[in-house]
Amino acid sequence: MAGVSDRRSGAPHVLSTAAIIAVGSELLTPLRLDTNSLFITEQLNAIGVDVVTKAVVGDSGDELTHLFNAVRSRADVIVFCGGLGPTDDDITREAVAAALGRSIVEDESMTERLRARFAARGFAVPMPESNRRQAMVPHGATVIENSRGSAPGLWLEDGGRVVLLLPGPPRELRPMLTALVAGPLKARASGSVLLRRVMKIAGRIESQTDEVLQPLYREWEQMTPPIGATILAQLGQIELHLFTRDSDAVRAVQRLDSAVARGTEVLGEDIFSVDGRPLEHVVGDLLVERGLTIAVAESCTGGLITSRLTDIAGSSRYVQESVISYSNEAKTSLLGVPAEMIAEHGAVSENVAFAMADGIRSRSGVGVGVGVTGIAGPSGGTPQKPVGTVAIAAVTARVTRSHVFRFSGEREQVKFQASQAALDMVRRMLLVS
Amino acid sequence: MAGVSDRRSGAPHVLSTAAIIAVGSELLTPLRLDTNSLFITEQLNAIGVDVVTKAVVGDSGDELTHLFNAVRSRADVIVFCGGLGPTDDDITREAVAAALGRSIVEDESMTERLRARFAARGFAVPMPESNRRQAMVPHGATVIENSRGSAPGLWLEDGGRVVLLLPGPPRELRPMLTALVAGPLKARASGSVLLRRVMKIAGRIESQTDEVLQPLYREWEQMTPPIGATILAQLGQIELHLFTRDSDAVRAVQRLDSAVARGTEVLGEDIFSVDGRPLEHVVGDLLVERGLTIAVAESCTGGLITSRLTDIAGSSRYVQESVISYSNEAKTSLLGVPAEMIAEHGAVSENVAFAMADGIRSRSGVGVGVGVTGIAGPSGGTPQKPVGTVAIAAVTARVTRSHVFRFSGEREQVKFQASQAALDMVRRMLLVS
Repeated sequence: MAGVSDRRSGAPHVLSTAAIIAVGSELLTPLRLDTNSLFITEQLNAIGVDVVTKAVVGDSGDELTHLFNAVRSRADVIVFCGGLGPTDDDITREAVAAALGRSIVEDESMTERLRARFAARGFAVPMPESNRRQAMVPHGATVIENSRGSAPGLWLEDGGRVVLLLPGPPRELRPMLTALVAGPLKARASGSVLLRRVMKIAGRIESQTDEVLQPLYREWEQMTPPIGATILAQLGQIELHLFTRDSDAVRAVQRLDSAVARGTEVLGEDIFSVDGRPLEHVVGDLLVERGLTIAVAESCTGGLITSRLTDIAGSSRYVQESVISYSNEAKTSLLGVPAEMIAEHGAVSENVAFAMADGIRSRSGVGVGVGVTGIAGPSGGTPQKPVGTVAIAAVTARVTRSHVFRFSGEREQVKFQASQAALDMVRRMLLVS
Repeated sequence: MAGVSDRRSGAPHVLSTAAIIAVGSELLTPLRLDTNSLFITEQLNAIGVDVVTKAVVGDSGDELTHLFNAVRSRADVIVFCGGLGPTDDDITREAVAAALGRSIVEDESMTERLRARFAARGFAVPMPESNRRQAMVPHGATVIENSRGSAPGLWLEDGGRVVLLLPGPPRELRPMLTALVAGPLKARASGSVLLRRVMKIAGRIESQTDEVLQPLYREWEQMTPPIGATILAQLGQIELHLFTRDSDAVRAVQRLDSAVARGTEVLGEDIFSVDGRPLEHVVGDLLVERGLTIAVAESCTGGLITSRLTDIAGSSRYVQESVISYSNEAKTSLLGVPAEMIAEHGAVSENVAFAMADGIRSRSGVGVGVGVTGIAGPSGGTPQKPVGTVAIAAVTARVTRSHVFRFSGEREQVKFQASQAALDMVRRMLLVS
């Protein structure tokens, strides 16, 4: 059974699962997030190691020991980051040693390196004794050199598991982990890769999308190796995440490609992106392909649609101008929407949206004109047209589309969903023209 | 000992510690972070509850149960967020019930509410059966209504502890938690408060701000109880966070008020907000106070400035229209910027920014005209005008201001910093007019 892990003995595990524990009281305030874990996850996934849990503890040895004991049996690699500095707050070394039942010993060659590093930085005074704490390591630890700071990393073996203690500052942690992943961690990993693909979907609700995908989930689960799927509802779009673990990276890519193709058969043009591009980028690419320009007459979105379009590098190829006509007067003076039409149908109506789209298209001489008018809230709603009512129209030389939507949420959410619906309307119109 | 918690019995704990567990496999990928915990922490801190640990688990009932058991004895409140949706992936209800040894029962009034909610949204099809899963709750749970989505929250008692299950989408979670914190959670809290105040600062760099604040940090540390301070550099602004814990909320507010006053003495009008308002809100309030309207001629910001201004409820009082003049032709046709001026000075110049501001002010008849023209990148830079160069001008009937900025970062960062600088220019102009 060479190369196969035996969880009950001390034989080295084949590394396939990981837990990440960030240490630092500042990470438990409303002000800071642990972001190191994203980088650590990416690195570990690349050698086929899955992160099964992650956690944050403050500068409390007791909490750290408790949490470590809790996750210890759940993962082949446990990565701590932070709490390796020279101050009393830095408790990771001691708490991990306590949890493992090991003594703390001074690594004298490390003390010497710390002294040399301190001297080399040109300080006239000798190294503060507190810095020696960084050379106090759990018995049996292998020291990992830190080329960019004073806190060395530590590698410990724990009944076949790997326990890593890494410094918190990203610029120190990153090169250290990259080297470990390329070397000793990879040597112990299964040799497989963990790949992901994201399909982005518009114009559907989550539960209905989930229902139509059920047969595919089963199909994907039965593949060898299986493809996993997670569906995520976001504001104005749904994401379907596909992921697979495979010993053969080329085969993994092929399998994900074919899974994406199956998903596309089922969801059709509701899928707007399978390569990470946001909707505004997809619309921009379609405009470039069709050789068309676009101008938007924005009311309730207040410039958000054009701002999203111009987030994309190179958007000056298809965006020349837009108009934000927030008041009724501006709709008339800037876009030529007849005042009588506004009086008769209301500013939030399909007629006015269409007149805005048509107005900006003729005044700007663009290929695609878009008009958006609605009630973002919190005030301005009526029983017939409650907050969240948004009329959108898109016009080209040959086709027109329009629709009245009813979005829920607060002002900014209504604005975003309206921008998303407008861009999606343009996308669908361009697909068939 | 009424009102005092007894950790070993089932008597209600005085709530002073919390653990937060976010549920969702997507939060264990390199693509997503749990950000709900920041809001949850802020809310809990406000009633004196400290977060002692936070963690993320995937959509695995087994991992969730294990982690819940591990943190259960460490906190008075355990908050789960996410995993309450209608799909098979949504395992929080079942896993928490399993950990607590409770059965799962259907809350029939909840099923009815779900059906009514589905029908009200105007879908022609009946509610998918999968949505009924959301009405399956652990025995003894109190249902917390969700005004903004289909997943109800749940409140469970566990040996004196409170276990909360909240939905993952922030717009659903936030109002629900806010109501709990104002009501039943506060009633069980210790009565001490952990208060924070944020001072927002523009037009300074972090290290210099930190330096001038050193004497204040020492003053605040020596207060009884002390006030802590953390400085955070963000894109286009710096935040100074002040925090203190006190058994007397009134005294805590007073001490923070006087600390804010001291900070204002030192930083002057570089402080734009001490009450959480973002810059676009501060500018809006100044416009209302002065009885002025505003219109923006946006080039490189692509509508972002007007979009930010119209994120504020009631902004229709001072925003009537804006123009996005992305191309040189649009600057001439929409704003009357002379083509010769663009040819002579370049589109990115103080002259053109001024002509844009002046042009939109006269065409719109507003009090304040703003012009912004720059190079957002990644292409379009020259040695004289590298990517990130942005000319901004603001004009009223009596005063004009203009400046050429050089921002660093990628396209979206340049856009945001330009919008921030333009709004800050308007703010400073309004302060003295």
